[in-house]
Amino acid sequence: MILNKVNYPEDLKKLSLDEKDILAKEIRDKIINTVANTGGHLASNLGIVELTIAIHSIFNTPMDKVIWDVGHQTYVHKMLTGRKNKLDSLRKYNGLAGFPKVEESIYDSFNTGHSSTSISVALGMARARDIKKENHKVIAVIGDGALTGGMALEALNDAGSSGTNLIVILNDNAMSISKNVGGISLMLSKLRTRNLYIKSNMKGKKIVSKIPLIGPKVVRFVQKTKLGIKHFFIPKMYFEDIGFRYLGPVDGHNIQELEKVLRISNNLTGPVLVHALTKKGKGFKAAEENPDQFHSAPKYDPKTGERLGVKKQDYSGRFGEKLVKLAKDNNRIVAITAAMTDGTGLKEFAKKYPDRFFDVGIAEQHAIGLASGLAKSGMVPFVPIYSSFLQRAYDQLIHDVAITSLPVVVCVDRAGIVGNDGETHQGLLDMSFGSTIPNFIVMAPKDYRELDKMMEFAMDIKKPVMIRYPRGCEEKDFRTAAKIALGKTELIRDGSEVAIVAIGKMVYRGDEVCNKLSEDLGIEAKLINARFVKPLDEFDLLEKVKNTKLVVTIEDGTVINGLGDQVERIFFKNKVDKELIKFAYPDKFIKHGSVSEIEKRYGMDTDNITNIIESVIEANNNSKIRGING
Amino acid sequence: MILNKVNYPEDLKKLSLDEKDILAKEIRDKIINTVANTGGHLASNLGIVELTIAIHSIFNTPMDKVIWDVGHQTYVHKMLTGRKNKLDSLRKYNGLAGFPKVEESIYDSFNTGHSSTSISVALGMARARDIKKENHKVIAVIGDGALTGGMALEALNDAGSSGTNLIVILNDNAMSISKNVGGISLMLSKLRTRNLYIKSNMKGKKIVSKIPLIGPKVVRFVQKTKLGIKHFFIPKMYFEDIGFRYLGPVDGHNIQELEKVLRISNNLTGPVLVHALTKKGKGFKAAEENPDQFHSAPKYDPKTGERLGVKKQDYSGRFGEKLVKLAKDNNRIVAITAAMTDGTGLKEFAKKYPDRFFDVGIAEQHAIGLASGLAKSGMVPFVPIYSSFLQRAYDQLIHDVAITSLPVVVCVDRAGIVGNDGETHQGLLDMSFGSTIPNFIVMAPKDYRELDKMMEFAMDIKKPVMIRYPRGCEEKDFRTAAKIALGKTELIRDGSEVAIVAIGKMVYRGDEVCNKLSEDLGIEAKLINARFVKPLDEFDLLEKVKNTKLVVTIEDGTVINGLGDQVERIFFKNKVDKELIKFAYPDKFIKHGSVSEIEKRYGMDTDNITNIIESVIEANNNSKIRGING
Repeated sequence: MILNKVNYPEDLKKLSLDEKDILAKEIRDKIINTVANTGGHLASNLGIVELTIAIHSIFNTPMDKVIWDVGHQTYVHKMLTGRKNKLDSLRKYNGLAGFPKVEESIYDSFNTGHSSTSISVALGMARARDIKKENHKVIAVIGDGALTGGMALEALNDAGSSGTNLIVILNDNAMSISKNVGGISLMLSKLRTRNLYIKSNMKGKKIVSKIPLIGPKVVRFVQKTKLGIKHFFIPKMYFEDIGFRYLGPVDGHNIQELEKVLRISNNLTGPVLVHALTKKGKGFKAAEENPDQFHSAPKYDPKTGERLGVKKQDYSGRFGEKLVKLAKDNNRIVAITAAMTDGTGLKEFAKKYPDRFFDVGIAEQHAIGLASGLAKSGMVPFVPIYSSFLQRAYDQLIHDVAITSLPVVVCVDRAGIVGNDGETHQGLLDMSFGSTIPNFIVMAPKDYRELDKMMEFAMDIKKPVMIRYPRGCEEKDFRTAAKIALGKTELIRDGSEVAIVAIGKMVYRGDEVCNKLSEDLGIEAKLINARFVKPLDEFDLLEKVKNTKLVVTIEDGTVINGLGDQVERIFFKNKVDKELIKFAYPDKFIKHGSVSEIEKRYGMDTDNITNIIESVIEANNNSKIRGING
Repeated sequence: MILNKVNYPEDLKKLSLDEKDILAKEIRDKIINTVANTGGHLASNLGIVELTIAIHSIFNTPMDKVIWDVGHQTYVHKMLTGRKNKLDSLRKYNGLAGFPKVEESIYDSFNTGHSSTSISVALGMARARDIKKENHKVIAVIGDGALTGGMALEALNDAGSSGTNLIVILNDNAMSISKNVGGISLMLSKLRTRNLYIKSNMKGKKIVSKIPLIGPKVVRFVQKTKLGIKHFFIPKMYFEDIGFRYLGPVDGHNIQELEKVLRISNNLTGPVLVHALTKKGKGFKAAEENPDQFHSAPKYDPKTGERLGVKKQDYSGRFGEKLVKLAKDNNRIVAITAAMTDGTGLKEFAKKYPDRFFDVGIAEQHAIGLASGLAKSGMVPFVPIYSSFLQRAYDQLIHDVAITSLPVVVCVDRAGIVGNDGETHQGLLDMSFGSTIPNFIVMAPKDYRELDKMMEFAMDIKKPVMIRYPRGCEEKDFRTAAKIALGKTELIRDGSEVAIVAIGKMVYRGDEVCNKLSEDLGIEAKLINARFVKPLDEFDLLEKVKNTKLVVTIEDGTVINGLGDQVERIFFKNKVDKELIKFAYPDKFIKHGSVSEIEKRYGMDTDNITNIIESVIEANNNSKIRGING
């Protein structure tokens, strides 16, 4: 095994090209076999094996800084920077993170997780280097999908005119998570095809070969089409017009070619763009054929790629299924996704209602702006976006949707703790920032049945709505179907002594706590499904909790400005003399691990919640007894 | 006066071209004379007179929908759509808004205020029209400055490949608010110069004239340079490669030419981009020469353009002055602006430290991403951004700055009520959303002296910091210079009976209230300068308020999750039995008007706050008396 000899980039630099090719194969095998167990981002990592080897071969990492856009494609990088033996712990609690982490390695220059940030960060590092009169390189590695994100385009604009030494490697696989969309993708596809013609065109070959530095590589790479030579000069245009030197395209799976072009880029000054063509899932047939499905893969058979375990319907799936039903009877319903057709459950909708379905690329800001235009013209847009990515559209939620109170239904998927993807992907802030926006209704269902009802409610109310739901499946079908009324809570279990007010998936947690309280102490607790974070009808709530002295809130989000704070405000305002315990996540970023491990770590599990309630009840009883005897 | 005959677009359609030229002059005069009194966005409106006339002449408004990006350039539009006689009330309380408002006119298709939203919204409306099988036009009018904003670029990407009928008019004046920057600006400047060559090049003229539809117009417009004909074909490329038909450039001050090109665009299908060249401040010498200063102008002499009233140093100016001082001794300080060098007080810094100054264009997301890269590499970035525009960078504050707790100092300018610009520009949410982000310190100074101290504190603490300060000047120099300590409040006036906890400019309001309470009732109230919204040291606060039963908070922000809520949480958590009154703005969007009018309207003025405090004190005294007697 070559891999046995390679721990750090300096080991890589001693290898021959042939050895590196073998190494690429070994790394690929190791990743396929490991991720089969751990789950993780398979396709993107298989696509970037050779490029990562070439980067660490040519550049002087960690002195040279590499910023990996999104960061889910860094398994290869981690293996080549001292962490290959920890790969089995990938994405596990206290194990290797699935994304770059400065806390983990000096080779991880910056933490990423969201798309389209790398050029901004790299440009900042390049400018800091210039000010400090240092002279290392800064390299941003970004996919063509991430290039549809506004932040990346803003940064390209600034970088292009900056004149500073900066290398942007465009890892172009014609995919974001789903197939890439939009005009930039069209343009890139022209770049690709326009450069593929030269093989069967000798005159073209001759001219192209003379282009300094990059010509021969392109010639060897070319394959299929037969466009005229004048087209060859056009592709570079966009990047060169905004100020970049453009090198490429180069075969992103040919280490020799990659090393040549990276060496050239290393010797140029000013902003340089290297365009590498890669294939997502490269080397693993199942993933090459279905890169979407292996974008973030659950466990699978490393031989066949067959998924292990039956995929049950999850919240995203239920959302998609219900939306298809609603759209059948309401032709004003449209759906928008930011490059997440599959992930948000919209596949069927897209197939059934292609004219009412819009995939805008990785572009959350535009997704919400588009929705507001559709809503203003009479449509009812449903826009499912993962909670942590919705943060990108905060201003659009305010400026384009809320100010004129347009009926946009934002479906906040992956809300709450998501688990293995860690800090950047936890959806802990949506209730909190959603509640800061005037006119927005923020709600969360306890089970699928209630998700259906909330979608109907949102469709009818003609106001801005957020409906948040977690990653994964419902844990219990509560079988209640009480009508949704704005701001009104739902009583699930009656009781005395203590009232538990929970929201979303945490209603189930509350249910478990009730069971345990009953078992342990014979106490019947009241369970209230809040349904709404905002608005929360104070008379309704106060009425429901009036005969309990102790109130407990449970929510799958930050403790700042969520459900607990809402209840607290209502109590404070009404001078209600009750004891309130708020169970929520602390005002911190929360690392990766399984959902249940994280819940346990932060005291959000059934045992801890029950124990705390029991100890409070006991203390109160004792003080009462003391009161009697004292 | 032609203007007397024109109230609505149908009147415009009856005019000859010559009459329209006269009308343009009359409109310009009226705007120059009106804004001299009302203040407002002068330069952009003078630049768009002919384009607005042409748009309403060619298109069938309000059936055809026009979305004005940013929206501050709509004075001409308002004059031509039934509102010319209300122009004197512009930006005043209950008067015409300075931005498009659907509440104000059926001709205002969508509310705008922030940059770069128009293409998204227009595309949404176009797609809604397609679904409804209607066939009106949708037109987005966007400046070249706004085109550096990521949201606009995301939307261009989607629109280009949409195939839908959509007209984007690029109002290209080579300016955003300051001179435009970045690669896209370079590209556009190539578009401009490349097309200006043809006049002195007869062969070129001939060829260009043959280009269907657009040729002759370009030829007549051309002026200066002498590039070769092959360059002529390149400019269209970027827009055409991403899927737009490109028409232009056209002289944006020639109504005849504009009408021709708009008529052509009206007859094309699919996405079309019309490139019009205009001059900001056109027709008013002072504004043409200094468009920055007349972007958002205070009162001036309509003859000479001379500013009326001496411009006092404001918070932005003080920030800039202090930053220059800090940067002298600390060469790690850098400054970033999103196209607001002047507006945020950075002019002097930019001149003195050009290597440490970065204007990134209208690109708040990238501004924060860039700052995080600079901070990670050892710099201390100060990033002044207006409060309502900072909403754009919420995710970057979280993902790029806060997760790894980088020392980025976000200076939140125009925080609180800004007044005449209305809903989209009020800075009411920054304390609220800032407090939702783990690791961020959120603070606000009561006067200039404290701003200096807070900037020093932020420079030294090496953590993410927001410092918020209002539009305008300090109202009092409190002359205290107590050292800033994390989370600690400052006692300004000692007293009993009631404690007023205020933050930022509202400390002055608290001071006024204390004076009035003293005058009215002879009560000495305690005045506490909170300094911090987050973290707020609870022991320190509780100690300071321990001997007062009544506590009042005053803040220039939303009531949700601001200072008042922080104090409430501390009281609730510590089971402190005090009465708390929170003075803050309600959870609503707040319309335009002067700051003092708005304060009065929402009970944030000295009289109302004092009255409420007095009535509570009185009621409490009465109940005590009843208690004694009862």
